[in-house]
Amino acid sequence: MLEGYRGKALELLSSLGAEIGDVLQVYNDKVSVKGILMPSYSRDDSVIVLKLDNGYNAGFSVNKVKVSLLEKGNRPQERSEHRELLPGKVKIISTGGTIVSKVEYETGAVRPALSTEEIIRFVPEIQEITSISAEILFSILSENMKPEFWVKIAEAVKRAFDEGSEGVVVAHGTDTMSYTAAALAFSIQRLPGPVVLVGSQRSSDRPSSDSGINLVSSVLLAKEAPFGEVVVNMHGESSDTYTLAHRGVKVRKMHTSRRDAFQSINDHPLAKVLWKERTVKVLRNDYLRRSDGVELNPKFENRVFLLKFYPGLRPDIVDILLSSGYRGIIVEGTGLGHTSSDFQEAFKRAVKEGLFVGMTSQCLFGRVNMNVYQTGRLLQQSGVVPLGDMLPEVALVKLMWALGQTSDLEEVKRIMLTNLVGEYNPRHSLDHFPRWKHE
Amino acid sequence: MLEGYRGKALELLSSLGAEIGDVLQVYNDKVSVKGILMPSYSRDDSVIVLKLDNGYNAGFSVNKVKVSLLEKGNRPQERSEHRELLPGKVKIISTGGTIVSKVEYETGAVRPALSTEEIIRFVPEIQEITSISAEILFSILSENMKPEFWVKIAEAVKRAFDEGSEGVVVAHGTDTMSYTAAALAFSIQRLPGPVVLVGSQRSSDRPSSDSGINLVSSVLLAKEAPFGEVVVNMHGESSDTYTLAHRGVKVRKMHTSRRDAFQSINDHPLAKVLWKERTVKVLRNDYLRRSDGVELNPKFENRVFLLKFYPGLRPDIVDILLSSGYRGIIVEGTGLGHTSSDFQEAFKRAVKEGLFVGMTSQCLFGRVNMNVYQTGRLLQQSGVVPLGDMLPEVALVKLMWALGQTSDLEEVKRIMLTNLVGEYNPRHSLDHFPRWKHE
Repeated sequence: MLEGYRGKALELLSSLGAEIGDVLQVYNDKVSVKGILMPSYSRDDSVIVLKLDNGYNAGFSVNKVKVSLLEKGNRPQERSEHRELLPGKVKIISTGGTIVSKVEYETGAVRPALSTEEIIRFVPEIQEITSISAEILFSILSENMKPEFWVKIAEAVKRAFDEGSEGVVVAHGTDTMSYTAAALAFSIQRLPGPVVLVGSQRSSDRPSSDSGINLVSSVLLAKEAPFGEVVVNMHGESSDTYTLAHRGVKVRKMHTSRRDAFQSINDHPLAKVLWKERTVKVLRNDYLRRSDGVELNPKFENRVFLLKFYPGLRPDIVDILLSSGYRGIIVEGTGLGHTSSDFQEAFKRAVKEGLFVGMTSQCLFGRVNMNVYQTGRLLQQSGVVPLGDMLPEVALVKLMWALGQTSDLEEVKRIMLTNLVGEYNPRHSLDHFPRWKHE
Repeated sequence: MLEGYRGKALELLSSLGAEIGDVLQVYNDKVSVKGILMPSYSRDDSVIVLKLDNGYNAGFSVNKVKVSLLEKGNRPQERSEHRELLPGKVKIISTGGTIVSKVEYETGAVRPALSTEEIIRFVPEIQEITSISAEILFSILSENMKPEFWVKIAEAVKRAFDEGSEGVVVAHGTDTMSYTAAALAFSIQRLPGPVVLVGSQRSSDRPSSDSGINLVSSVLLAKEAPFGEVVVNMHGESSDTYTLAHRGVKVRKMHTSRRDAFQSINDHPLAKVLWKERTVKVLRNDYLRRSDGVELNPKFENRVFLLKFYPGLRPDIVDILLSSGYRGIIVEGTGLGHTSSDFQEAFKRAVKEGLFVGMTSQCLFGRVNMNVYQTGRLLQQSGVVPLGDMLPEVALVKLMWALGQTSDLEEVKRIMLTNLVGEYNPRHSLDHFPRWKHE
């Protein structure tokens, strides 16, 4: 089987009697390269893909090189290809993203792909941890994630637990993973086990990929962790020794490309997973225990705006949002939770019209305190609600969820101020701040 | 002189013959406290303010306590009160903020105050470093800072150098200090010396205040640093050993309350100031040297919007901004610089109508790369311009400035992509990431 090959490349490979796993040589007057034939995910039907000795995959156009078969290899085992996927102890729900993506060799770019079975084929070790079942819920890039997809994921998680899973792994793109984590945390409470969101900062078929380690440790975590919480489990540092399970409502993607991009803000991670040792080390004891009787409540109002304040922002934006049908605003204010004072009247009007206006800080670390400066006190008099150390993005998702539950503004306010799943850290400490390298 | 006292408190203190600096006892049937009489900044004319043995200041209402004079103190020296302020080697320009603020004792809240002479009185050591001149440009809370004030500050900085200052210190509230730093960096180039923005996370008359150290080290820096750059100089760590001078276009307030809230992002600080040792330690050699022939160009277009993308954000916001007269949008996208793909058409329309649309990342650390994923490539085809490792807030200020220079969209794009004052770090490194405490 010459998986993925079409057209010219398929024709040539067939004529050589080559199969996936065989060693081929490609050459022309400039280059001569040896490598193992890999499945193709290229859109260009003239490209063949070889895994080189250095571990990298590379694509070659049969229009530009000649190809010869050096030796027959072993066809890669396809143990899970036709395996019956029965309900497993851990269920993997795939939603798309880099962890289930392929490189387009001709452009170096990445496109989401294929089947969850294929993930299992990439990382067969996960089947040694426990029995796995899998579902491809959809396959979208996480930047295209929307509240309506959160609902589908929440329902699929509930189904998995109803079917007897002990834990659920959600494969997800990293761009918006923390938003989805917060959405799941609010909409599925009393969890019987961990819901582990996992992604990859490097795609699965790249040598530096973190998808294998992240997936192994996530399955381990889903099976063994004592908590019934939604967590994000990703590389803990830039080497490959451990991953960290961050509380889903206290985590943020803090780097565009590092493998340890996800970090807890104003909080410590819940657990550390030593994937080689197959060990889950729980770091705290104030987690929510595995519970029973899942409460599923995935309703979201997405007419909520995240307004980041900056000098020169005109207060009429509030009126514009009001007349555009928005029902709530999370402000990312400066410092302890401020905007310029010319916003006071605009917010007062908005609150009077029934909008919820909540205040967070663009500093990200620390907590808003609107009692220190006059500006904060006057904003509170306008009806703006300070939201402690909640991250702006989490406050946004929580407000979408709260407005999905009720349209009573007082009830929305009560929900927003109640610590439901650890979105507020009652143990405020100045020590929740990383150490910076200065020299 | 009973500075600041009025009404009842003044009457009582006068009848006792008390002066500032005297030791008083206040008492009633519940409490008896001894302390040194301080100037009053209270709005309540019945309050007297004492510095207690523990170093804290406290206010007492003469309606609730009796007061007696225990011993006469030394009147605090007012060496700078009536001193002629001649052009100094370092000029302090005061714009307001906590560093020049007072606590309202009756509420515990903070209000901006008073005169720059008073800053000098708080920190008389600065006069031992060099000759100081001072100007109160205005006195506003930094959350009320606006582009039109940036213009005034830029002009005042230019004036100071024209008068012969070797360096300029700008006292500024911390909320929007990094926005002002960026605005000054773009609008005053070829600087003859450092422009040091400095603030305080704790107000001047609180025992834990950082204003003294920050001001001393800023004056030192303004006088001695070899660079002609705009920097933010604030506490380097939570203890009091040193401050750090961060490049004004690579710094961000990263904590609501820590004294070392300001940190360089995707960059290292330019210098470290050991204030006790009176030493400036330059940490890099790739700074802009002191130059001559200041170029002042403080024009800003403030119809620019900072749009933070999140799942569920509706693309019609782009059309709303377009029809509201905005001329540019800085997007804070996810990950490497993404929005959901339904924004592609909206951005294409906006760019066609003459808006500049630039992409930054809400991760803050790292840099956008819109060539890796299809989403990024399609956004670029819509006319969205990737802005490397520029911070979203800096890109916003730069776009305000660029649109102030020209309305030619190609020229705006050229300006946005040119590294003018270090807003892009050409030495991209994954090591520009702090170390996180995980356990």
